[in-house]
Amino acid sequence: MKHPSPYNTLQSYLENSNFRKVMVVCDERILQLHEEFVRIHFADNQHTQFFFFPIPATESHKEMSMVMQLLDQLLIHHFDKNHLIINLGGGIISDLGGFAAAVYKRGIPFVNVPTTLLGMVDAAHGGKNGVNFHHLKNGLGSIYFPQQVFIEPLFLYTLSDQEWLNGFAELLKTALIGDTELWYKLELWVLGESLSQLRSRISAQVIKQVASIKNGLVQQDPQDRGVRQQLNFGHTIGHALESLHLEKEIELPHGFAVAAGIYYETELATRKGILETNQKKRIQRVVQKLYDIPQLDLSEQSRLIHFISQDKKNKNGEIHMSLISEIGKGIHGVPVSIAEIESLFRE
Amino acid sequence: MKHPSPYNTLQSYLENSNFRKVMVVCDERILQLHEEFVRIHFADNQHTQFFFFPIPATESHKEMSMVMQLLDQLLIHHFDKNHLIINLGGGIISDLGGFAAAVYKRGIPFVNVPTTLLGMVDAAHGGKNGVNFHHLKNGLGSIYFPQQVFIEPLFLYTLSDQEWLNGFAELLKTALIGDTELWYKLELWVLGESLSQLRSRISAQVIKQVASIKNGLVQQDPQDRGVRQQLNFGHTIGHALESLHLEKEIELPHGFAVAAGIYYETELATRKGILETNQKKRIQRVVQKLYDIPQLDLSEQSRLIHFISQDKKNKNGEIHMSLISEIGKGIHGVPVSIAEIESLFRE
Repeated sequence: MKHPSPYNTLQSYLENSNFRKVMVVCDERILQLHEEFVRIHFADNQHTQFFFFPIPATESHKEMSMVMQLLDQLLIHHFDKNHLIINLGGGIISDLGGFAAAVYKRGIPFVNVPTTLLGMVDAAHGGKNGVNFHHLKNGLGSIYFPQQVFIEPLFLYTLSDQEWLNGFAELLKTALIGDTELWYKLELWVLGESLSQLRSRISAQVIKQVASIKNGLVQQDPQDRGVRQQLNFGHTIGHALESLHLEKEIELPHGFAVAAGIYYETELATRKGILETNQKKRIQRVVQKLYDIPQLDLSEQSRLIHFISQDKKNKNGEIHMSLISEIGKGIHGVPVSIAEIESLFRE
Repeated sequence: MKHPSPYNTLQSYLENSNFRKVMVVCDERILQLHEEFVRIHFADNQHTQFFFFPIPATESHKEMSMVMQLLDQLLIHHFDKNHLIINLGGGIISDLGGFAAAVYKRGIPFVNVPTTLLGMVDAAHGGKNGVNFHHLKNGLGSIYFPQQVFIEPLFLYTLSDQEWLNGFAELLKTALIGDTELWYKLELWVLGESLSQLRSRISAQVIKQVASIKNGLVQQDPQDRGVRQQLNFGHTIGHALESLHLEKEIELPHGFAVAAGIYYETELATRKGILETNQKKRIQRVVQKLYDIPQLDLSEQSRLIHFISQDKKNKNGEIHMSLISEIGKGIHGVPVSIAEIESLFRE
């Protein structure tokens, strides 16, 4: 790492690191919605010249031709290893900007400033980047780590409830696989309070706690061959639900798919005798309070199983899932049969 | 690493690993020149289906559009992390195929089968890959390691003398920075024997010894921030000579530029009082026996210094070089002034 000393805010980081050039890769809406933030942080000064690469943050723009345009800009402005990329936006921005940072001159430094809760707890951490490739989600990409991830409260508190819930599902998941105590706090808040009270509980501090659970697993297994896969709890069924909805052209945000994935995979863990029924019920109660769990008809069930069979965690044609054995304890590489998945939707 | 057990030959590796699909990225001339090798190794069998991606191995084809074509083929044939890429060719092939392997689905396994001496001792090892980007050599790329590198003697013994000498310069360099005993053997052979005798001395075994010196430095410093830079001995002036010749459209193979780089940087090390005069003389005698050392006129000298000032190892505008303090002992990060470089060409 080039700048190991952690600064708490983007501002103090920029002030102390004195990069001569900075490329701000950003969601174009953020430039408009948060003009003030942009002006305060990214005004040219005696040390630093700022460049901007605004992108429409949609999946259809997250592809190689956009990366090539960004790489062209980096080259035109003579960026090198002594300069910085800042990714300001949600997962689409950090995935794309992180990939460009990874391959430009074999890698230059970058930091992420997530503007969504999903980014703050998940996408901005862990070094996975990428772009879609002929309809294959993240078909091209690499694993390359940001120098730092900044949680800026401004962005946390200006999200819509829908956007916030989209990220909160990953936060629930991370507590379920790695932090018993945090999960019981979340349960209390979810069940006992209004959504706006709940939102006020999830401070930058809580988010950093959740991010550090993820980062702990990533550090043990950066290449995602073992324990890191615990982070996929809720995601085998969650991803399959996303593919199913994509095919039907019905919108289903990632977090809402993961929430449903947590619901069904918790059920599965109990039916396999891995998780106690009582714990399952508590988890499902929390998820159902905040999220609609989609019910599937027979043809949808068979399509879902088709997508699950294509999951990249499978080995030699066998389905492998990440589940939990108790609240706060993730496990990975659990073999699951198609019959077991089918039975989930039977009653 | 997916396949940590080392097999000595590509054949035993393929027989023991049973990949269902293999993509052979290859220099198109190799397919013609070594039909027999290709037929023996890459015939479809009950376990494995082989695909081919032949490339004209020239610098002008080493660019992103070729990588995208290869990635398309990988996707069309449903390659994933359980399949293999084999790069069969020189540095252009392993640079391009290694980059594709690094970014396809965030990285799939690959092995290198270098067909040039330069590839065997240098380019195929160390995980650096990349393609040219708007005339910037290796402007895009990453650091991503092959599962294994296979030294196949067939390719070693069918090279022209010119191709062989192109790789031998890197071999000399590696001995100079890391293996005193090997260097004195090389000196004996170079000064005492004919080129064909010398060639017969450089067996696959010697090449593996040289590769392990490089790999030792790479393992200590994969990201090239410290000791790995020792491998750049001869390369600051060598690269600048390459740029100078490129500008004048005169061909200068990499190894011949490095040989001249070793000659001048050895001189520099002695003038800076780092290396004994006697050792310098022995090194220069060996280099001069095999390589022409280009002399530069005044305008060429100033152009050379221009290129050296742009070297990526420089820090804060100061030139930093990798030199040797004695035969077999590389050092890196040595500050060098422009005046010191100018003086090299003065007498």
